[in-house]
Amino acid sequence: MTQTYDSGFGSGFDRDTDVRPTVEEGRYEADLSAGWTVGGGLNGGYLMATLGRAVSRRARDLGHPDPLALSAYFLSAATPGPAQARVEVLRAGRGTSTLSGTLTQDGVQRLTVLSSYVDLGSLTPEVATTATPPALAPVEQCVPTSEDPMAPEFSHRFELRLDPACLGFASGTPGGRAVMEGWFRLVDGREPDPISLLLAADALPPTTFELGRPGWAPTVEMSVHVRARPAPGWLALRHVTTNLAGGYFEEDCEVWDSAGRLVAQARQLAKTPRG
Amino acid sequence: MTQTYDSGFGSGFDRDTDVRPTVEEGRYEADLSAGWTVGGGLNGGYLMATLGRAVSRRARDLGHPDPLALSAYFLSAATPGPAQARVEVLRAGRGTSTLSGTLTQDGVQRLTVLSSYVDLGSLTPEVATTATPPALAPVEQCVPTSEDPMAPEFSHRFELRLDPACLGFASGTPGGRAVMEGWFRLVDGREPDPISLLLAADALPPTTFELGRPGWAPTVEMSVHVRARPAPGWLALRHVTTNLAGGYFEEDCEVWDSAGRLVAQARQLAKTPRG
Repeated sequence: MTQTYDSGFGSGFDRDTDVRPTVEEGRYEADLSAGWTVGGGLNGGYLMATLGRAVSRRARDLGHPDPLALSAYFLSAATPGPAQARVEVLRAGRGTSTLSGTLTQDGVQRLTVLSSYVDLGSLTPEVATTATPPALAPVEQCVPTSEDPMAPEFSHRFELRLDPACLGFASGTPGGRAVMEGWFRLVDGREPDPISLLLAADALPPTTFELGRPGWAPTVEMSVHVRARPAPGWLALRHVTTNLAGGYFEEDCEVWDSAGRLVAQARQLAKTPRG
Repeated sequence: MTQTYDSGFGSGFDRDTDVRPTVEEGRYEADLSAGWTVGGGLNGGYLMATLGRAVSRRARDLGHPDPLALSAYFLSAATPGPAQARVEVLRAGRGTSTLSGTLTQDGVQRLTVLSSYVDLGSLTPEVATTATPPALAPVEQCVPTSEDPMAPEFSHRFELRLDPACLGFASGTPGGRAVMEGWFRLVDGREPDPISLLLAADALPPTTFELGRPGWAPTVEMSVHVRARPAPGWLALRHVTTNLAGGYFEEDCEVWDSAGRLVAQARQLAKTPRG
């Protein structure tokens, strides 16, 4: 069965990322929710999921409902309220389609993406992963970010429990390791799917928190590879940075599902916050 | 001094990636060279360098001549001969500009990119890299790929010397590790620069060679982060794959310069060749 992402509004995530087709092909309307505010705007993963959903609406007519690769460039800070998505098919192939998408508010571009969409359900079941999942403490021993009184608004839209080994920053003693790990799930019992993985890949605090740089780290570019439809349940997330230089740092994200599969990999380039 | 990339045709690389402005703003003409043939078309890194150069022509007028991040989606196989590049400024910022670019032949899109350009010379000198360079054998103990009679045409455009530890495939006994490492430099004494790093990031054979899958591995998406202008001399390259699944694999590339700096990081998603 082809996934449609028309799952109704049983969850806040589905409601907040909803896109409505217009009479013009490839044009969609969205309402960005203030619930996803963080730093100087709305969370990048939330915006990628919303635009990724608009792209999926167009790509599913080509038989390719799922993001396989999506590269996002952030142009200006999005604000709560109406937004317009424009999706263009660059190439409709047999197994893969390539599409571009842009999210605009009042004529100002917020986010633009290039993407390859496929039917993840049709891929070969072959798996030869040598990466290993994060060795996270059990969920009940990890610390919910939403309980922090300083937590940004968007952290109430999902459950994120950070591993105690990455939590030095929370008590003012950053651990010095550029690693951030934790458990993630949406609220309302909404199970993960390829679109929500675009959010999950940008949900952890930046690794720079543990390097004593607690400020906002605006993303320049972020590319997500969705490699499989995730199994229901908690996702395990890991962020690692190895090259902090010239005022920028890369952040690699792995998303593992409850069946132990590496379902998404992402890399972003972000501006290093001041120390 | 702002880099212009107008270095003349002292090298084959500069000649083959040259782009000529047309009377129309943001439109350029290129002549793709048969010298870069590999697998079913022209090398992806060569195409990225050519289009990246067209983007640079436009971005330098905004004070941002160097690629910082460039994400490429490959749409169809390019062929030797005339090509047209179209570059659009999406956002001209103070420190960064965001641009899109498309390379077309006879009206058929070959490659489309989103990119952020900066002046790499203006970035803070801060470096806090924890990644470590590949432990390569000395250049003279590494094996030139161009001496292989089966070597693709494009391997004669540069010097690539592979570390013996990654060379099992060459004698029919693939080593089983998804790692590929070697030394790289352009011919004609052409020193590396940010544009040639776009080529270097896609110059090694795919890691799948060492996994017993010697076929062509077409790239779906490739994102390159150029983090600094490279020092003159040999570059050390490393490819690593950790997730081969569902018919696709990711390939992470590091490019280190002769001064020991991690000057570029890249990740691509490619189709797994049949075994």
